[in-house]
Amino acid sequence: MKSGHRGSAVEKNESNNEPAVPAQARLLPIGVFDSGVGGLTVLRALRRQLPSEQFVYLGDTARLPYGTKSAHSVRRYSVQAAEVLVRRGIKCLIVACNTASSVALEDLRDRYAPLPVVGVIVPGSEAACQATRTGHIAVIATEGTIRGGAYQREIARRASTNVVRAQACSLFVALAEEGWTDGAIAEAVARRYLNELFEADPRIDTLLLGCTHFPVLIEPLRRVVPAGVSIVDSAWTTAAYVEQDLRDRGLARSSGAGAIDLLATDGAERFARVGSRFLGEEFGAEQVEIVDLKEIA
Amino acid sequence: MKSGHRGSAVEKNESNNEPAVPAQARLLPIGVFDSGVGGLTVLRALRRQLPSEQFVYLGDTARLPYGTKSAHSVRRYSVQAAEVLVRRGIKCLIVACNTASSVALEDLRDRYAPLPVVGVIVPGSEAACQATRTGHIAVIATEGTIRGGAYQREIARRASTNVVRAQACSLFVALAEEGWTDGAIAEAVARRYLNELFEADPRIDTLLLGCTHFPVLIEPLRRVVPAGVSIVDSAWTTAAYVEQDLRDRGLARSSGAGAIDLLATDGAERFARVGSRFLGEEFGAEQVEIVDLKEIA
Repeated sequence: MKSGHRGSAVEKNESNNEPAVPAQARLLPIGVFDSGVGGLTVLRALRRQLPSEQFVYLGDTARLPYGTKSAHSVRRYSVQAAEVLVRRGIKCLIVACNTASSVALEDLRDRYAPLPVVGVIVPGSEAACQATRTGHIAVIATEGTIRGGAYQREIARRASTNVVRAQACSLFVALAEEGWTDGAIAEAVARRYLNELFEADPRIDTLLLGCTHFPVLIEPLRRVVPAGVSIVDSAWTTAAYVEQDLRDRGLARSSGAGAIDLLATDGAERFARVGSRFLGEEFGAEQVEIVDLKEIA
Repeated sequence: MKSGHRGSAVEKNESNNEPAVPAQARLLPIGVFDSGVGGLTVLRALRRQLPSEQFVYLGDTARLPYGTKSAHSVRRYSVQAAEVLVRRGIKCLIVACNTASSVALEDLRDRYAPLPVVGVIVPGSEAACQATRTGHIAVIATEGTIRGGAYQREIARRASTNVVRAQACSLFVALAEEGWTDGAIAEAVARRYLNELFEADPRIDTLLLGCTHFPVLIEPLRRVVPAGVSIVDSAWTTAAYVEQDLRDRGLARSSGAGAIDLLATDGAERFARVGSRFLGEEFGAEQVEIVDLKEIA
């Protein structure tokens, strides 16, 4: 919904109760940042949820994975990555990386206010709390995310009676990147990680996927979790959250082409090959722009 | 064998034909550099082979893995890591990382000559060429090492009649770091990667482990490779090569305590926990010194 007043910096949208925002802001792309290709599952969900929006995605492939790195390093990397997106002009920033969401979100909000900065921890935790009936929730993620404890804290904050069990599933990342997302090996790995979890607490009725790599393993996960357990995918819950947030802020586009710019910090060929599986559509290395975050102060 | 002449800068070793070298140089530690914990399998082999030597090991855990990064990035990281070790004073530099060995060795030799710089590619390739009778050799490594083609070139250079088949085995790294180094899953993964290789060329009689993580998977690998196939481990062949090289240069210590200094660029706790399995002995996070390579020009 474009403003007819070219001279007006602020568009007054009189057709509904959306706040008045600059028309230019509404037309800007949504920035999505991740440590690598995993966040492309979040981008995939965002595109389905918001088909009119444009996106610019940055995967910090030169420094992945964040999951095994210190909070200090992850904060520094996150600010550098966000800076690239902010300089290109974005209307909101999605931190698709769980590790970065758990340690860098406040830093990014402080630095770029009033830009909306959305992580994956809060939407995922909210959805898990809504899904559970027993109050017993299992979270699976990388070692770094689990150790950081952000999902555990967010879930506990919503209902202190909730029981959260957390399990690091490092091999899922390797399986997802290798493309071994179904078959006997993926199922055996899932069984090894999850059996112990569900045996320890048979009342668990909700499994929260706390890593952007894990949605591509949904088939073996479904076969392994006990019947009646809901699987909550933070990619989809984040996309739904962003849609609502953009509407509330009057920043949602009502029409558009839905183009994507893909940026990475290293290895365009591998980013395209592995990333195509995560995005759910093929793209080539020539569509990936390489940027150098070392030059960012 | 220490010199009795305190005033003499150069020790003349008259008991054999070793070249004359400064006594101080002989007493310096051996520097070992890797992208993370994997190189600790090389350090383990070096300690067994050279029990009198002192070692300083640097794992660039802040930026691992190198295997998925571009040659340009790996060269830059390697020089920064080497610089830290060289400034501390070392008598030779072992590049335990296969990816760095395959792309950064010449840069490091040019920069630090006459310091001996030893990679893992040449010793591993030589040992594989000595082990094969059929001339058919299989190399398994990370995606980056295989794509770089250094092992394939080194083996072909030694005998152009050799047939080399290369297979990236990315999941082995995750299995090794998770400690799932034996049992049904490790064996199934090994079978999936290797069966195709040996079916494609039944004349393969030598399997070269071209990644420092892989030696800890020796048991499942032994169960999966066909009978009569030699497994060549570049950690042990590199240690044997270094021992001979130090003797040739008159740099080998004849007695000593064999102390180790352990440095990492991030995550001392994880480095100690995962690294203990690779080194083959327990060490704690408090024994790991964290260094910042960003400060290195």
